[in-house]
Amino acid sequence: MALIVQKYGGTSVANPERIKNVAKRVAKFQAQGHQVVVVLSAMSGETNKLIALAKEIQANPDPRELDMIMSTGEQVTIGLLAMALKEIGVKARSYTGGQVKVLTDSTFTKARILSIDEANMRRDLDSGHVVVVAGFQGVDEHGNITTLGRGGSDTSGVALAAALKADECQIYTDVDGVYTTDPRVVPEAKKLDTITFEEMLEMASLGSKVLQIRSVEFAGKYKVKLRVLSSFQEEGEGTLITVEEDKKMEQPIISGIAFNRDEAKLTVLGVPDTPGIAYQILGAIAEANIDVDMIIQNVGHDDTTDFSFTVNRGDFAKAQAILEGVKNKMGAREVTGDSKICKVSAVGVGMRSHPGVASKMFKALADEGINIKMISTSEIKISVVLDEKYLELAVRVLHRTFELDQ
Amino acid sequence: MALIVQKYGGTSVANPERIKNVAKRVAKFQAQGHQVVVVLSAMSGETNKLIALAKEIQANPDPRELDMIMSTGEQVTIGLLAMALKEIGVKARSYTGGQVKVLTDSTFTKARILSIDEANMRRDLDSGHVVVVAGFQGVDEHGNITTLGRGGSDTSGVALAAALKADECQIYTDVDGVYTTDPRVVPEAKKLDTITFEEMLEMASLGSKVLQIRSVEFAGKYKVKLRVLSSFQEEGEGTLITVEEDKKMEQPIISGIAFNRDEAKLTVLGVPDTPGIAYQILGAIAEANIDVDMIIQNVGHDDTTDFSFTVNRGDFAKAQAILEGVKNKMGAREVTGDSKICKVSAVGVGMRSHPGVASKMFKALADEGINIKMISTSEIKISVVLDEKYLELAVRVLHRTFELDQ
Repeated sequence: MALIVQKYGGTSVANPERIKNVAKRVAKFQAQGHQVVVVLSAMSGETNKLIALAKEIQANPDPRELDMIMSTGEQVTIGLLAMALKEIGVKARSYTGGQVKVLTDSTFTKARILSIDEANMRRDLDSGHVVVVAGFQGVDEHGNITTLGRGGSDTSGVALAAALKADECQIYTDVDGVYTTDPRVVPEAKKLDTITFEEMLEMASLGSKVLQIRSVEFAGKYKVKLRVLSSFQEEGEGTLITVEEDKKMEQPIISGIAFNRDEAKLTVLGVPDTPGIAYQILGAIAEANIDVDMIIQNVGHDDTTDFSFTVNRGDFAKAQAILEGVKNKMGAREVTGDSKICKVSAVGVGMRSHPGVASKMFKALADEGINIKMISTSEIKISVVLDEKYLELAVRVLHRTFELDQ
Repeated sequence: MALIVQKYGGTSVANPERIKNVAKRVAKFQAQGHQVVVVLSAMSGETNKLIALAKEIQANPDPRELDMIMSTGEQVTIGLLAMALKEIGVKARSYTGGQVKVLTDSTFTKARILSIDEANMRRDLDSGHVVVVAGFQGVDEHGNITTLGRGGSDTSGVALAAALKADECQIYTDVDGVYTTDPRVVPEAKKLDTITFEEMLEMASLGSKVLQIRSVEFAGKYKVKLRVLSSFQEEGEGTLITVEEDKKMEQPIISGIAFNRDEAKLTVLGVPDTPGIAYQILGAIAEANIDVDMIIQNVGHDDTTDFSFTVNRGDFAKAQAILEGVKNKMGAREVTGDSKICKVSAVGVGMRSHPGVASKMFKALADEGINIKMISTSEIKISVVLDEKYLELAVRVLHRTFELDQ
């Protein structure tokens, strides 16, 4: 008998029919003798609907009140799933984040989990109940309702698994696992049986939107066994995200090719090469709540340097206007930008022990005549910024180059 | 400076525009120096939508889980109103029933309020906040979310006013007060400036759906000054519901004519006139969760008696089937029924000190050729059951007979 936490996303509970299917799947696990805690998102589209309603009242909705409203989406799905379970004879009880005391800080709309009280859940599990918990939400020390930010239900699932010391946390989504790259771009892409937390972090942050990145960090930190599975397929083992590199077999050098279409690039040319210049540039961007992805500053010359970074394409115009505004103050020569770029990355823990991965990657791109605009590397990934039009070609070439289709 | 509790119903918060109007009205009261606690219903239609969703999963939704779902409707409106108040510069904070600890028993879907913790509200009011509380909901001793039953937001408003010892509880609705009868039936109907709790109770239970009956009981018990007003009119004093009869002026004999169209009548003929027979008949009806309104049993003859009662018209077929099922067991001769009836009542505390009200009423109906099918009286009301087709005529005749248009 194992204790399993299962998290189902918005598309898995999008309507009563699908909720009934989730109930059947949960019942099957319980019938096998497992204890099951289910964590749910809101029905897909519901959270956006609530935000739109709030924005009709306030252009920038008050965060505390927005959380009050947004948290209702999950509260509806947990009640419905508990009903669906009872309807097929399974004992079940639903709980809001506040009711199982998912204690968070008071950072409304992006709160962090501090602790979880497992008493209620443990009692229900021991009396044969399925416990159904609202994802995405918690409660602060004053009893205010908080939410964890977009995709926070994944984090809820992992946090509950950690608190309950569950044997496995299963994330059900609309894909059946993590792939070497997006099968829509490379039909030969293969599902990975396992991937390390570090690789998953790089893949997630690079645009493979299978799991919320914070949930992966959380799982890594608390050693929660995390598995990604499809909620629309009966069979399949999904992809297991492991703490340890698999020692038994030779590690592939590269595990996957990630990419992100929604990028834009900004460059400040000829800024004085003095301490504090990076802060001057990025401070203004951060104040406008714009997330910055890659940051590149090369060695300067003639006491000036060029400073580049990428942002989400939707923030491009705003970021450009901000830079134009501070250009003179910081003595920069010019601000340039390009919103028609993409980012392609090779990810793999294997590159730690295999030199030459970068040059192999650059050669493969050069052979196809693809010009690289920016390069950024970490210990287990190499990212390049390319002209948007090369995205599919680059992904296919790299997938083949690193033999991911084998 | 007064402390006012204002309750707004579903039509008053049906969309963002109306919520903004409520915010303006609340702001006006606060600007006059009053402390304001606002109690809200869900947007009109929302609760029914949630119930329909639940019924797609379970024909008879689990009550605990149904309350989990239904309570989200008010949670959305309180967040939106708090936003609307902040948007116009008024400090505001929203609370669910659980957050201000509206403690109830555990009778899901029709819970009773046991106590309210005023600490949070008092602190916010003292720091200049408007407090916005979700009506219709509470929390039991185990932290389960409960709801108070249809129209429970009125009860929430009165209970909060009682707990806070508010100077007045204002119920905002889509009518501007309590009328001598429905103006759609009698255009000469007059708004009452005051009405006693007892009269209001009879009016409400007889189908004048201005206030939920339980809230009136509650207000009477805790001596809460209750006022019904329109949320769509800027001016007007509404109708004040008073504890004491007005001693200053001569009391009108009759305060209003109430009626109910949705009635049906069932009669069990020739039942043995033995102890326990009423329970045998009504026990089976109660078990099927059918509410019984009037009950009439006349003196028997030949050791048998006839037993009549009225139910909501929607329950007529079900009730009839139940009676047919138990007819033989209790030795009754026949079950008859009529679903085309209505009930018309004259209500007034004045009839306590004025004999002859009943005969005046019966004469007025007889003069119009209206046959009375059943009669039932209480200390302050006389109800008659009539053929449905006479409803408007009877109401108009009685309204004029008791000079309510003067």
